[in-house]
Amino acid sequence: VTNMFRIESLAIGDELLDGRVVDKNTADLGDALSQLGLELQGARTVPDRRALIVGALKDAARRSDILVTSGGLGPTSDDITGECIAEAAGVDMRFDDEAFERIKGMFAFRGIPMPDSNRRQATLPATSRTLINETGTAPGFVTPLVVDGNACEVWSFPGVPNEYRHLLQTYLLPHVRERASTRVLVRRTLRSLGAAESAIGERLGALEKENPDVRVQYRAAFPEIIVRVVVEGDDVTKCEQRANDVAARARKDIGHSVWGEGDEPLEVRILRVLENRKETLVTAESCTGGLVAKRITDVPGSSSVMLGGVVSYANDVKIAMLAVPPAILSTVGAVSEETARAMAEGAQKRMGASWAIATTGVAGPGGGSDDKPVGLVWFALAGPGRATIAVKKKFPDFGRERIREMAAAHALRMILEAATGAAS
Amino acid sequence: VTNMFRIESLAIGDELLDGRVVDKNTADLGDALSQLGLELQGARTVPDRRALIVGALKDAARRSDILVTSGGLGPTSDDITGECIAEAAGVDMRFDDEAFERIKGMFAFRGIPMPDSNRRQATLPATSRTLINETGTAPGFVTPLVVDGNACEVWSFPGVPNEYRHLLQTYLLPHVRERASTRVLVRRTLRSLGAAESAIGERLGALEKENPDVRVQYRAAFPEIIVRVVVEGDDVTKCEQRANDVAARARKDIGHSVWGEGDEPLEVRILRVLENRKETLVTAESCTGGLVAKRITDVPGSSSVMLGGVVSYANDVKIAMLAVPPAILSTVGAVSEETARAMAEGAQKRMGASWAIATTGVAGPGGGSDDKPVGLVWFALAGPGRATIAVKKKFPDFGRERIREMAAAHALRMILEAATGAAS
Repeated sequence: VTNMFRIESLAIGDELLDGRVVDKNTADLGDALSQLGLELQGARTVPDRRALIVGALKDAARRSDILVTSGGLGPTSDDITGECIAEAAGVDMRFDDEAFERIKGMFAFRGIPMPDSNRRQATLPATSRTLINETGTAPGFVTPLVVDGNACEVWSFPGVPNEYRHLLQTYLLPHVRERASTRVLVRRTLRSLGAAESAIGERLGALEKENPDVRVQYRAAFPEIIVRVVVEGDDVTKCEQRANDVAARARKDIGHSVWGEGDEPLEVRILRVLENRKETLVTAESCTGGLVAKRITDVPGSSSVMLGGVVSYANDVKIAMLAVPPAILSTVGAVSEETARAMAEGAQKRMGASWAIATTGVAGPGGGSDDKPVGLVWFALAGPGRATIAVKKKFPDFGRERIREMAAAHALRMILEAATGAAS
Repeated sequence: VTNMFRIESLAIGDELLDGRVVDKNTADLGDALSQLGLELQGARTVPDRRALIVGALKDAARRSDILVTSGGLGPTSDDITGECIAEAAGVDMRFDDEAFERIKGMFAFRGIPMPDSNRRQATLPATSRTLINETGTAPGFVTPLVVDGNACEVWSFPGVPNEYRHLLQTYLLPHVRERASTRVLVRRTLRSLGAAESAIGERLGALEKENPDVRVQYRAAFPEIIVRVVVEGDDVTKCEQRANDVAARARKDIGHSVWGEGDEPLEVRILRVLENRKETLVTAESCTGGLVAKRITDVPGSSSVMLGGVVSYANDVKIAMLAVPPAILSTVGAVSEETARAMAEGAQKRMGASWAIATTGVAGPGGGSDDKPVGLVWFALAGPGRATIAVKKKFPDFGRERIREMAAAHALRMILEAATGAAS
């Protein structure tokens, strides 16, 4: 990748290194840059210590054009980012009267007296340019820093995620967008379930070799493997055509484990498809314990499709709430095709839905047998005017949580495929 | 803090720099080290590019005793951490037959053929020591790396969070704990729900001032705020006494939002209490959509207490499955005290459980009104031989997901308090 700029990130703060806070600003910055076809070259995190901050500033400024710092702009004594930048640049500090008036104004607006410590937030490196922050008291600033003959611009934002994002979007992105506008970057995303990352990598080995100009990226987002095809060039139409061709071939090469394309999660797809068909959905879960219902109801507006569900752990609940015949439970047991079918059909009928998905299996860690090992799950799907389908899967025993996640994803996939298959 | 070792972290992977993945491993490592009284000195993230990885390895190895890398141990062509470490150390690669047998075994266990690319995962730096990974195919390894006369140990773990944590806890923590063992560090953890972090910080302001030798750490683990009191010293008994005293005062100062102490999650506590009392539990969820059931059934062995649950989004499902009187729904509506009570009592009776918890509210983003705004939730709890209790809460509108999480946590807290209150 040829970058217009070399861009790095430096996050500052003890709380990022002792586990109290997960740094999300770096991912935010990376995401925003990658949407412009730019690349974040590296990121670093240092504690609130002067020598380490100054060292990291100089180190990054030596090899980058833009360095984005986050954190250390607060009013307390451990907020020393501005001072460290001034030290690295060999300049004094200046007091920004205008910024100070804004800070005083924010306190006045809230009707509380301003602690004197907030003066610190208006004290900035002498050579910096102030960036007005509409979302908090700390202004951002940009300071030139030349190290070993390399001229770097240091952009300093607060660490609070919404303030960071505000300054990023208001100032930095327009600045880099202008200079990045000649490049084209086209992406296609394939989403798969049920195949290992290594198996997918192998199936795409030939494609990767034959298309050295195309980047193929793999990402495990359990239980999915997400494959992204990235094409770079000068011409939008050509890049899109090429990305479409390569993605189509990749989809064929990977095979059945691809369930869809794009960034839309399974549950969102399902809801969109069923809403268009004016159909409704209910769940009848044993081993997944509410996870399928939770994933569907996570989506805003899901209530137009999702009527409800039953979590039936105990056999008595399967009988009372889903009308599973006791004879089935006493002969073939709860983890069986017959029970799965009865659960789906009972849920569909009792709750009056178009579709009902049922899961019953052994999530472990206990409860497995030779016959019905941990990871064995029966699924059944009852649909409108069609025969109920039942499928057995044996998931690898990656532990209770992951078995439940794999089973829930498989259940969702069954719904999507049946609903879209029926549509065609 | 005086450090026994200088420890740094290096995360490797394009996905960490283009916004696809937020790096949580660094925070995990920092948290684990801080619990041993050790400090993570710095962290860095680089893309999957050989020159940048080798450069970052050498740079960090120059100034640290332990460097922990995460990522780049997979089977695909962009997984090059091992090769880069070998290059930095100036050594060849070795093929680890034993590790390879384990990888083959994992595929055999799953009953699928092993792609040849997985051989890469058994190809490690010649001077490395292998760390067996029980949770995935990629083994970890430790490689000595001497740069400018400084001897650093490079510990390499997979980037997948649960595999990273497994190797961290199995190998690295025992190793550093041994060398850190002369210090005494006692912690007490308070868990709270419903108060903002800043409000809790304010309530503990006097305590912090009066006990300058005690560290008070705040952590937001949504929807909980977790407060940790840390006492350091030479004498275990004295430190424990002091930690207990300060924690007791902190609990009093914070007030009712503290629901418990220690590391045990709410759902685990509930299951333990109900199991001891030989009582059972069911759920009747509207706005939380299965999240309460999911949290409870996440816990292994939960089936001895948890019989099942109903997710009743649609009014017809509330009527059909939970026997909510239609007249209630048509007069006071689904989000009401009466509906919550009827849901809890219907679930308790229909599923034959000791306890039934019900939630009905407005999770948003749509569906709110002046009367019943987004964030309003009614809870009801039916218990054995006692009157059903109902509570109304208005959660701040932090968005659908967070409202659901706050509501689920509150529902769990109601169960715990009623069940333990009844026991006393």
